[in-house]
Amino acid sequence: MKLGIIGAGRIGQVHARSVWQNPDTTLVAVSDPHIEAAQSVTARYGGTAVATAEEVINNPEVEAIVICSPTPFHAEQILAAAKANKPALCEKPIAMDSATVEQLYRELEGLNPRVMMGFNRRFDPSFAAAKQASDAGKLGKVEQVTIISRDPAAPPKEYIAVSGGIFKDMTIHDFDMARFLIGDIASVSAVGQNLDPDLADTGDFDGAVITMVNTEGASATVVNSRHCATGYDQRLEIFGTQGSVFCENVLPTTAHISTANHSRAQDTYLDFFLDRYAQAYALELAAFVSAARGERDFSPSIADGAAALRIAEAAETSARELRTVTL
Amino acid sequence: MKLGIIGAGRIGQVHARSVWQNPDTTLVAVSDPHIEAAQSVTARYGGTAVATAEEVINNPEVEAIVICSPTPFHAEQILAAAKANKPALCEKPIAMDSATVEQLYRELEGLNPRVMMGFNRRFDPSFAAAKQASDAGKLGKVEQVTIISRDPAAPPKEYIAVSGGIFKDMTIHDFDMARFLIGDIASVSAVGQNLDPDLADTGDFDGAVITMVNTEGASATVVNSRHCATGYDQRLEIFGTQGSVFCENVLPTTAHISTANHSRAQDTYLDFFLDRYAQAYALELAAFVSAARGERDFSPSIADGAAALRIAEAAETSARELRTVTL
Amino acid sequence: MKLGIIGAGRIGQVHARSVWQNPDTTLVAVSDPHIEAAQSVTARYGGTAVATAEEVINNPEVEAIVICSPTPFHAEQILAAAKANKPALCEKPIAMDSATVEQLYRELEGLNPRVMMGFNRRFDPSFAAAKQASDAGKLGKVEQVTIISRDPAAPPKEYIAVSGGIFKDMTIHDFDMARFLIGDIASVSAVGQNLDPDLADTGDFDGAVITMVNTEGASATVVNSRHCATGYDQRLEIFGTQGSVFCENVLPTTAHISTANHSRAQDTYLDFFLDRYAQAYALELAAFVSAARGERDFSPSIADGAAALRIAEAAETSARELRTVTL
Amino acid sequence: MKLGIIGAGRIGQVHARSVWQNPDTTLVAVSDPHIEAAQSVTARYGGTAVATAEEVINNPEVEAIVICSPTPFHAEQILAAAKANKPALCEKPIAMDSATVEQLYRELEGLNPRVMMGFNRRFDPSFAAAKQASDAGKLGKVEQVTIISRDPAAPPKEYIAVSGGIFKDMTIHDFDMARFLIGDIASVSAVGQNLDPDLADTGDFDGAVITMVNTEGASATVVNSRHCATGYDQRLEIFGTQGSVFCENVLPTTAHISTANHSRAQDTYLDFFLDRYAQAYALELAAFVSAARGERDFSPSIADGAAALRIAEAAETSARELRTVTL
Repeated sequence: MKLGIIGAGRIGQVHARSVWQNPDTTLVAVSDPHIEAAQSVTARYGGTAVATAEEVINNPEVEAIVICSPTPFHAEQILAAAKANKPALCEKPIAMDSATVEQLYRELEGLNPRVMMGFNRRFDPSFAAAKQASDAGKLGKVEQVTIISRDPAAPPKEYIAVSGGIFKDMTIHDFDMARFLIGDIASVSAVGQNLDPDLADTGDFDGAVITMVNTEGASATVVNSRHCATGYDQRLEIFGTQGSVFCENVLPTTAHISTANHSRAQDTYLDFFLDRYAQAYALELAAFVSAARGERDFSPSIADGAAALRIAEAAETSARELRTVTL
Repeated sequence: MKLGIIGAGRIGQVHARSVWQNPDTTLVAVSDPHIEAAQSVTARYGGTAVATAEEVINNPEVEAIVICSPTPFHAEQILAAAKANKPALCEKPIAMDSATVEQLYRELEGLNPRVMMGFNRRFDPSFAAAKQASDAGKLGKVEQVTIISRDPAAPPKEYIAVSGGIFKDMTIHDFDMARFLIGDIASVSAVGQNLDPDLADTGDFDGAVITMVNTEGASATVVNSRHCATGYDQRLEIFGTQGSVFCENVLPTTAHISTANHSRAQDTYLDFFLDRYAQAYALELAAFVSAARGERDFSPSIADGAAALRIAEAAETSARELRTVTL
Repeated sequence: MKLGIIGAGRIGQVHARSVWQNPDTTLVAVSDPHIEAAQSVTARYGGTAVATAEEVINNPEVEAIVICSPTPFHAEQILAAAKANKPALCEKPIAMDSATVEQLYRELEGLNPRVMMGFNRRFDPSFAAAKQASDAGKLGKVEQVTIISRDPAAPPKEYIAVSGGIFKDMTIHDFDMARFLIGDIASVSAVGQNLDPDLADTGDFDGAVITMVNTEGASATVVNSRHCATGYDQRLEIFGTQGSVFCENVLPTTAHISTANHSRAQDTYLDFFLDRYAQAYALELAAFVSAARGERDFSPSIADGAAALRIAEAAETSARELRTVTL
Repeated sequence: MKLGIIGAGRIGQVHARSVWQNPDTTLVAVSDPHIEAAQSVTARYGGTAVATAEEVINNPEVEAIVICSPTPFHAEQILAAAKANKPALCEKPIAMDSATVEQLYRELEGLNPRVMMGFNRRFDPSFAAAKQASDAGKLGKVEQVTIISRDPAAPPKEYIAVSGGIFKDMTIHDFDMARFLIGDIASVSAVGQNLDPDLADTGDFDGAVITMVNTEGASATVVNSRHCATGYDQRLEIFGTQGSVFCENVLPTTAHISTANHSRAQDTYLDFFLDRYAQAYALELAAFVSAARGERDFSPSIADGAAALRIAEAAETSARELRTVTL
């Protein structure tokens, strides 16, 4: 399948590499307003560099599109892809606010959008194995999910200022994971933290604890931090009536060192999201190609993207107003 | 040191055994309204069986008292011990409500109560090691604590009916642990769950997630369940700016089994609180004896018991009213 | 059951403590040529201090005997206990050489010796669980056992000089464990190491690797060292056609620390044999009492002690003569 | 760099894939007497399919050669590559016997062979990390290495018949690993096992325990089996005076499952050598390319291949003659 990528930033490069490594896909076009960025990607992974999204979407060779542009452009590019009748894999979040998503829904009426949202963590082999164990009934009825999700280090303050806030920018992945594991969320109780003095004037939280409850009373709790000294801290547990499954962090090696000071010390966690989720991105692309071929649903869907965004907005309200928000 | 125990129920027996095993202590009196229960304890561990708390408190041989009676009697027995000028180790919770504690404070005025609260988990070697690592600065500044606390199985409905509710009965230990690890709590956000159909008509929650924040913004989150298929699930993590410490569950052996189905499967968790916290109870008694000898503070104190109870009350309010409660 | 202990050294004190903690046993006599040593034990755990083994064995109150004297006295005291018709728990090894054991067998003819050998590791909960998994068929047919057995630090050179050598003194426990797990040994191939410059002039090995094969071809390999920086290193693995079981080291707490340098660093291993095998010693004594009451066999038996000693002698020959020794 | 591969069997395909995935390398020729096999590889990864090794070696486009033919052809192809003055990466073992290697050395005189042996495990990130910890002095002086090396399942009897025996075919990797970790080997003591009734008439061992000692007295012990129910069992430990490092098996996910039957059960080990050593093969190829560019030594070298083979021969003698063999 011949793919075009919109946006040659960090995440665009990730997908370009996945396209190159996947024997079923070829990169034919990459766009970026900074054409040099696009050229840098095509020099490495193939295809033609262009300046605009339109040139990718309307390129007759391009069979499917990966949207890696900044969030404010997602909705219009989803719409353009739908109008071009081409499947699209769109990075998270779907938009900066739910109003934009509702507008998008209206504009998509009558079209047949084939859109998959880039919630890559659903494709992580460990999290997917946990989900499978749960779906297979090995845990009984799911009652409580706990997600620890901490970035290795905070992004620049300039980034935070335009990020939409921690809930839309960072926790959005965890909100989707919560929905992946316990389904639709009925209420959200969030506690925000301002701990990092360097981020004090961003107005954004740099830590958070969010507890969601689904329509049947099962809970999902997320513990977030913008930093973690040991690396990229990504763990989760699903607890059910008959058992539980826990996913540990991913480490670069299996070596354990024991000395007179301690025993079995392991490596620090993989500290870059591309290393940590390398397999997840590759499997996500494969799933998208499979969906584009009609072999599976486009899942996670636009609706999943919209739902995660609504939870993010509810979490912000909850943390600011010190109350549980019902969805 | 010669000790007397008030109450020959399950927890009274625990302390009687600790007294017997501790080379520094001797059991001289045990009271229980069911004198046969007291006799059963003295037959095994020594001392005289009596019917009333007064006979223990006022026994001139008794140098220090362990209060293991039902919660409604705690305040009056703490007072009686103080009037007799004898140190007392009192089981949790200190009372059924904060009003009773305030009344107790008034009655203790002018006396010199030497009271230690039976928050045994502070003395668990693993949790104590975690606290020490934190106090030693190995974790940097503490930002987020996560406590997983699940009982192996729910108590009888009859017990739950008089227990004061999950927060006072079960989470009280976790509230104290939160304070042990991050200090005084400024606000509480609690989510209650009703998941077990067998407990539906108790009116009490059977699961809960509670997030506390201290005066400096650090959080402590507790995930509670009345049941856990794998045993007594007691884990915690302290996360700080420089590192984290995690305490795993305690297992009866170190054996790991690998087969064609899985690798490194370990034992289920110790599923009885006495096995799980056997060392903690012994170390708690040793600390009490040491405090009674003037070698250390009576810590955790009455104030700690009162603070945990206030958090429990705030959690109940938060979960019922769907709002954060400020303390 | 009323017990007498011969020998008030370190291991005698261990058993005295077990007697004191076991509600079924009482200490009535302790002997030691240094009567002060015996008195120190009786002052702590009860009973009468005497100077000679005879005074313990022939004390009419003493129902069963624990032999904790130096190895050269074991055979004669086993014989004396048998003549007095009293059950005996004898520390390892049974004698300094197999010739002495053969002489003992001749002298025991016509008597009914009830002797259990103090191979305490058979009673360690983890090793016992591994053995149970194996006996229960969970591993299929056992093919290869691997035992890592390292002391935290070498004993004084003076001790090594009279110890009988590493195989009789230290590996003897592992030889018994090998037999416990794969049964009678048909051949022994040993490699000795002289690595510690401080022990160079003892003439004894300070490290060794020994591979045994049983009559059906299953192997048991022991890796020994007189020292280990991380503590008392005691692990084993049983590998069978259907699976394997591995016993990790025992640690004082379950805490894991993660920092910017490493993740999940645990405590160093318990580094004192009494801490590491505290449960094993208590369970060993309970098993002995049970055997003395006719409720179970005296196992491990004199024959087990004799077999381990023969392997130790074969290992010494193998390591010195660079050849496999057939038993 | 443009590469040619000799041999399109399983291991040839592994290297072809590595060449394809490595951005620095291109596949230009693949040979196999079964030309269809070569064509199948070139169809997938590029290059021209030919029938003979000569057509690869003498192809002027080919800058470097990967020798993946059956072992009896290795020596002559190494020689041919040297005569063509092209660097070669040669699969293990270097030859079926040391006499052939000596003949090869004579024939290489006057030439400048640039040959790296395909001991891929040296490039495994975990084993390499263990080696680095050791080289960095974190373990003090190395005293004892333990290597557990078990295949998931035995190869067909027909393969075993022509394999040269377990030591040359399977343990050869472990012999190289032992040398990688403790250097040149002075003596070998091997115990062979015949445990699998299905392999009884092959005349080959199906299990083995080999203990090597280096010139300074440090030991390396290998435990081998042709089968392992849980998967490909590849672990090792380096023990030194100041600490130890242990490499666990590699698992497909980090998920742990806990139920009423057990806690923290993990996946079975990766059970295919290509999955287990995927990173090692890729890093090995990268190292070879780097050596071919003059940026590093060709290591492991022919001499390393020859040394491992000599140990294999010594192990066979030791196991057959029941004696330690000095090298």
